[in-house]
Amino acid sequence: MIAAGIMSGTSLDGIDVALVDIDGVGLATTCRLISFYTFPMPLDTKQHIMRACLDKATTSQLSSLHSELGYLFAHSVQEALKRAHIASKDLRFIASHGQTVWHAPNSHDSNSCTYSSTLQLGNSAIIAWECQTTVVSDFRSMDMAAGGQGAPLVPYSELVLYAKDSTNRALVNIGGISNITALKAKAQIDDVFAFDCGPGNMMIDEVCRVFFGCEFDEGGQLAARGNLNPQLWQRLCDNKFYEQNPPKSTGREMFGAQYTRSLLRQCNILNATDALLKSEYAYDVLYTFTHYSAFCIAEAYKHFVKPHFAQQPCKDQLIVSGGGAHNKTLMSMLDNMLPGVMVCSQHDLGYSSDAKEAIAFALMGNETLHGRASNVPRVTGAKCSVVLGNVTPCPIPTNSGVLDVL
Amino acid sequence: MIAAGIMSGTSLDGIDVALVDIDGVGLATTCRLISFYTFPMPLDTKQHIMRACLDKATTSQLSSLHSELGYLFAHSVQEALKRAHIASKDLRFIASHGQTVWHAPNSHDSNSCTYSSTLQLGNSAIIAWECQTTVVSDFRSMDMAAGGQGAPLVPYSELVLYAKDSTNRALVNIGGISNITALKAKAQIDDVFAFDCGPGNMMIDEVCRVFFGCEFDEGGQLAARGNLNPQLWQRLCDNKFYEQNPPKSTGREMFGAQYTRSLLRQCNILNATDALLKSEYAYDVLYTFTHYSAFCIAEAYKHFVKPHFAQQPCKDQLIVSGGGAHNKTLMSMLDNMLPGVMVCSQHDLGYSSDAKEAIAFALMGNETLHGRASNVPRVTGAKCSVVLGNVTPCPIPTNSGVLDVL
Repeated sequence: MIAAGIMSGTSLDGIDVALVDIDGVGLATTCRLISFYTFPMPLDTKQHIMRACLDKATTSQLSSLHSELGYLFAHSVQEALKRAHIASKDLRFIASHGQTVWHAPNSHDSNSCTYSSTLQLGNSAIIAWECQTTVVSDFRSMDMAAGGQGAPLVPYSELVLYAKDSTNRALVNIGGISNITALKAKAQIDDVFAFDCGPGNMMIDEVCRVFFGCEFDEGGQLAARGNLNPQLWQRLCDNKFYEQNPPKSTGREMFGAQYTRSLLRQCNILNATDALLKSEYAYDVLYTFTHYSAFCIAEAYKHFVKPHFAQQPCKDQLIVSGGGAHNKTLMSMLDNMLPGVMVCSQHDLGYSSDAKEAIAFALMGNETLHGRASNVPRVTGAKCSVVLGNVTPCPIPTNSGVLDVL
Repeated sequence: MIAAGIMSGTSLDGIDVALVDIDGVGLATTCRLISFYTFPMPLDTKQHIMRACLDKATTSQLSSLHSELGYLFAHSVQEALKRAHIASKDLRFIASHGQTVWHAPNSHDSNSCTYSSTLQLGNSAIIAWECQTTVVSDFRSMDMAAGGQGAPLVPYSELVLYAKDSTNRALVNIGGISNITALKAKAQIDDVFAFDCGPGNMMIDEVCRVFFGCEFDEGGQLAARGNLNPQLWQRLCDNKFYEQNPPKSTGREMFGAQYTRSLLRQCNILNATDALLKSEYAYDVLYTFTHYSAFCIAEAYKHFVKPHFAQQPCKDQLIVSGGGAHNKTLMSMLDNMLPGVMVCSQHDLGYSSDAKEAIAFALMGNETLHGRASNVPRVTGAKCSVVLGNVTPCPIPTNSGVLDVL
């Protein structure tokens, strides 16, 4: 059946829609990518999301943004269907990750009455109504309710789609945040191991905005002109997230614009005059942040993945997906940091790199509609396997119950 | 089967849990109330909700509150089951209304990038996990997506449970806001007519807090000691919500603490000294606000319901439920304002008055799980009948799909 997966990551670089043809369940699932599109995030919406992520949005603004993103996601799916020449009525369900504006799995504090929580916006009722189909959404909450970090969630789909008999595969997704999944040769679900490495493009993009007036470093061309700034490097390495034992997850709360700018201030970089900045600092700063993103991934691989792969004596691959796979400087840094490992992009292997996460949520939505779990407890830290997400039924009533989608 | 309905209204007077034995669907539904409990809202949580409703909560605070309320609702259901001696495993589903912190169905404004939206908090995944059952939640979003006001939603359940062959019945619920449902004798779904009348207890409670240091006017005893303050009455009547043609809905945005206090300031009541206040103003102010709540209901009946009932020449009843039914002063005002109408409480007729809304959501959750619509488009203004709510599957996987609850 035809389904759509929608993903909009913390890097705010666009709305990903994967249209897939999916059948079966669990490890027997077949899933073929029909087509994939990334739609630009409108500037207004981006500003609303940034405000929310910076903890500066109020109730009314968040409530409005929940609707705004619902319409945006719905129209993105409609546009994708149109471009792919698929009739709306043939779409059986949409799996929508939603836009994360808060993710704080470890913030329980009874003194301050703060609860662990995660918040993904994009009203599923609006998506279901606009597209007249069933929607599965809010995948992270149930894993967190069951004691997990609510992330990463892609490992289940990675096991289904990427595990091999003869190769140890580390899958790295570099979005706003980077994460890694270890799929040793012949992996079963209990072998899967995954966690967030640290910042992906998030800090790199912020530096691009501050110094170059652009949204990201296309192809890594700007970073390629710089060198390591030792003072900034030292400050970056003071953040010990990369050393923490998995399972672990992070987000804009730790590596967002505020943190990036505070580092630049601490190193007196933001205090220098504009002219000086451009000539002396800018490329070096970008290089250093790019190096840090690569470093966090390489450290994750060396300390936590490599020992696990050593159990299966066969070749090791590190396969990069997400926006970061297009950053040649970052990819080259990774290759240098990891001798003996074949570093490549998903695209090099014939998979769609950009579509990975959107496809993953389509797969998880399929599991949910079959009443099946799709978290990997070893990865998220959840107490057990749980069915993820909320099902918003197709709005027009049917005679046969919510699940006639299947 | 046994189900629970949870309701927590805008008046924040507690968490209502109705345990019901429900079977069938649509007009053929049978629904017996097993037991009903109201659990007090903890003071901390109440303050967090108030902050959110006053549009002063930020992203992290709302995200945390979403979890906090999830746990609170879950534990309320668990406590209800315990008191009713029902085993958790016998509970087939929970229908959770959630705590409304924003409801702005008419706020679409493309210039300011504001979207119509509604926000009910109380994470359904947490409820489902803690109670190990299926949860239906977020009932208002789909009606709004379909062009409706997202309120009132109780009319469907009122038709199912209260319509009679020989009596015209106007059902009034007085919670934070008051609403009215017209069920003429022999009503079918297209006859049902309902809308918000105006403030219920919301402004009365605020006055109690400001002048008497208590949360509400128990039995209406305080208001009974006052008389109409003409200046305040004039100001109240300047708000023309009560004259607007239905469908219409309102909430804390229009009649909340800010508005109440601004009226008191405009009448120089908040500027007077404390001693003067207590002696001269306090009881009169409370009487006047109580009178206004009764007036809004009576006007709604006279102008919009009575003409509709005139089609069926039989006796007319106005049946009051919600916290306001306990306010004898308010009930007596209603009786005086509506000669020829039998004004009584649901309790007088042998129905549980307080449980009404919680039961209503259990009925709607049942419809949703059967893939059936439960809004009344004529009432909400929606373009058509739609299936309401999100289904959060029981977290532990089953082999037969999401809907094995039925």
